[in-house]
Amino acid sequence: MTDAPAIPDFSRGVDGLLPAIAQDAGSGRVLMLAWMNPQAWQETLETGQATYWSRSRGKLWRKGETSGHRQRVTEIRVDCDADTILLSVEQTGAACHDGYASCFYRTIQSDGSATVADSRLVDPNDVYGKGSDAPSA
Amino acid sequence: MTDAPAIPDFSRGVDGLLPAIAQDAGSGRVLMLAWMNPQAWQETLETGQATYWSRSRGKLWRKGETSGHRQRVTEIRVDCDADTILLSVEQTGAACHDGYASCFYRTIQSDGSATVADSRLVDPNDVYGKGSDAPSA
Repeated sequence: MTDAPAIPDFSRGVDGLLPAIAQDAGSGRVLMLAWMNPQAWQETLETGQATYWSRSRGKLWRKGETSGHRQRVTEIRVDCDADTILLSVEQTGAACHDGYASCFYRTIQSDGSATVADSRLVDPNDVYGKGSDAPSA
Repeated sequence: MTDAPAIPDFSRGVDGLLPAIAQDAGSGRVLMLAWMNPQAWQETLETGQATYWSRSRGKLWRKGETSGHRQRVTEIRVDCDADTILLSVEQTGAACHDGYASCFYRTIQSDGSATVADSRLVDPNDVYGKGSDAPSA
């Protein structure tokens, strides 16, 4: 007898981390991708606020704790392999630390070059302070 | 003088792989997450068909080459850190090898349990053959 795989299955992650996609519950826009470990997952379930694991800072990242740009989670889904998480969220302010609504503000042309396609919602300097180290994934 | 970082920046990936999200161009539904290496990226740009790197099989994965369930790419975006790719796609058939339109066919309840929330589009046995090893990420 074998136990059913855990959902989500963090053993399938790289360094125990699984990718988590945040999608705007209203517009359907994909806002960002960050990472979760079991602690971030549990806190997200318990608080209803998106909580990630910051790979760059090596600590729990309560989205919006610096900027106030929180994400209230309205639905959570997992994929077929139980190794990717999809959050529907109500986003306060800008999801992106560069001040855009979505981190995916650049399109790629057929020659591989990148173009900024969106407008900034906020000035990151106003949110994080000038020269500050804005949180990222 | 330093060169601008490459877009996307595969040096930021784990084992040189970056996550790539496929989103339905029409409905906005998030269909799946898979992985890309530079070869998969180049082939996607050149052919306009989503091509990934299969971690489980260790080879290039031309989405739909077994099932016919291809993804025609209508737009490509990258995120602020240039380490996540977002494809808008026109999906033929079911994105998920379990036969669902999206791999994210299960919702998670507040107690952490998973519930199948969608209906199957196709029977995977009809697509991949009975007992076959359907491609996955």
